[in-house]
Amino acid sequence: MKIISSSSSRELSLRLSEELKCEILDIEKKRFPDGEMYIRIIGDIKGEDIVAVGNTREDAEIIEFLLMMNAAKENGAGKVIAVIPYFGYARQHMIYKSGEPVSSKVMVSSIENFCDSIIVVEIHDLETAKFSRKGVLNVRIVKPFVEYYKNKKIDYIVSPDDGGLERAKELADLLKTKYFNIDKKRLDSRNVTMTVPDIDVKGKNILLLDDMISTGGTIIKATDLLKKNGADKVYVSAVHGIFANGSYMEISSIAQDVIITDTIFGKWSKISVAGEVAEAVRGVTNGA
Amino acid sequence: MKIISSSSSRELSLRLSEELKCEILDIEKKRFPDGEMYIRIIGDIKGEDIVAVGNTREDAEIIEFLLMMNAAKENGAGKVIAVIPYFGYARQHMIYKSGEPVSSKVMVSSIENFCDSIIVVEIHDLETAKFSRKGVLNVRIVKPFVEYYKNKKIDYIVSPDDGGLERAKELADLLKTKYFNIDKKRLDSRNVTMTVPDIDVKGKNILLLDDMISTGGTIIKATDLLKKNGADKVYVSAVHGIFANGSYMEISSIAQDVIITDTIFGKWSKISVAGEVAEAVRGVTNGA
Repeated sequence: MKIISSSSSRELSLRLSEELKCEILDIEKKRFPDGEMYIRIIGDIKGEDIVAVGNTREDAEIIEFLLMMNAAKENGAGKVIAVIPYFGYARQHMIYKSGEPVSSKVMVSSIENFCDSIIVVEIHDLETAKFSRKGVLNVRIVKPFVEYYKNKKIDYIVSPDDGGLERAKELADLLKTKYFNIDKKRLDSRNVTMTVPDIDVKGKNILLLDDMISTGGTIIKATDLLKKNGADKVYVSAVHGIFANGSYMEISSIAQDVIITDTIFGKWSKISVAGEVAEAVRGVTNGA
Repeated sequence: MKIISSSSSRELSLRLSEELKCEILDIEKKRFPDGEMYIRIIGDIKGEDIVAVGNTREDAEIIEFLLMMNAAKENGAGKVIAVIPYFGYARQHMIYKSGEPVSSKVMVSSIENFCDSIIVVEIHDLETAKFSRKGVLNVRIVKPFVEYYKNKKIDYIVSPDDGGLERAKELADLLKTKYFNIDKKRLDSRNVTMTVPDIDVKGKNILLLDDMISTGGTIIKATDLLKKNGADKVYVSAVHGIFANGSYMEISSIAQDVIITDTIFGKWSKISVAGEVAEAVRGVTNGA
């Protein structure tokens, strides 16, 4: 087994190669003068199972990922296992307004054209998996958070909305803390109200946990709200950190700290999903 | 039948809608703050056959094209016919160096995931068609050149290399002119020599014809060479004009004029492939 990685996932892939004790192959990458992308896998892949790691958010990383997986197959790879640390377009898993595509279906079917199985990490909506003919294995990330927060004296794990309550509960059970979710009500497309339920957070340490931070709007409002209700420290954490519009700085300035995994790599990537992903890859390759 | 067009092909699609006497639907397009693309087809497509027009060179236009075709299908379209005026990646139809992908295969199979048939215009290499399960119809463009050049008193149609000789001959037969190709010898990856065969071009009007102008290097050298050999006017023409590195200006400054079709739209798009594409679409929809 060998690993190839798109530009989106170099750091995670290096950690994955340590976990799996297997080689990571370099990829030559350039643009032709006309704008087309050129990639080439350096090294021998004939007969090897290939773990291809790449995200599906930016246009370029999607094209790179498809070319990369095809290069593995065309050059004689055995099985190609697509690992998608951050599966982009997962929120567009249905038609909200007539004329829209089902974008997450476009991503799944484009990718499985070039691989034998798909592993994703904490995909935003599991509905996407049903578009796959081959099945999508979704890796849950809990243990790395336990490690990081076990000595932080957290009193409450808080989800910024009811959709994340299950995640908060799961981590709370392991950290032996309490948990709740903020009441988030959408008034219209631009306005939401958020209220803390009838729980006294005065002087308490809170871990505000979500699956992803995109623009950061929700997390910023939730942190403000908890602080106004007298919370002492508010730790902010999520699996995926996009931080559109440079929102990392704003969140950092009001939270105790902001800790994200390495599915999308940045200075905030203080914990890794490599161990959990490695376990999933072993499961797939052993036919488990 | 209705037409939808990606950002790459608006002008051609408008002409196509006139030729086919059918509606072209608007597409709402934006980016989410996280960088993902959003598109939506405006108007009714239920039960309609849809002609989806888009190029496959730039990353963004490829993603847009896939989303667009899926939106048609998901919203109840009948047949989806993909029309690809400029099929990017056609030059990467084989592995030149180990570890490379077969990029044109990646494009064909990604596209035919979301359509019922594929029409391309003067694809650079027909080898690409063999990667399709559904078949690729390649539209040849000759007539629009005849129209444009029939009164220009062309003496010779010249191909800049032997690969384009057939194209030069075909147009020469219709224009009733003579034709030949320049001898192009590749010395190494950076150097080529070009020589005019034993033909006197002194005072002659030349139409230098290629399928595509990418960086323009070959066309510039060929124009220089013909001028040095005493040619009077050198008209430059091609089906596809990419003009990487802003080479349009340089070619314009030495050629009599530079005339390209509207497969990639620019100020040089003085002739249209819409008539020929419309005919191909009619053939496909009539089951011809």
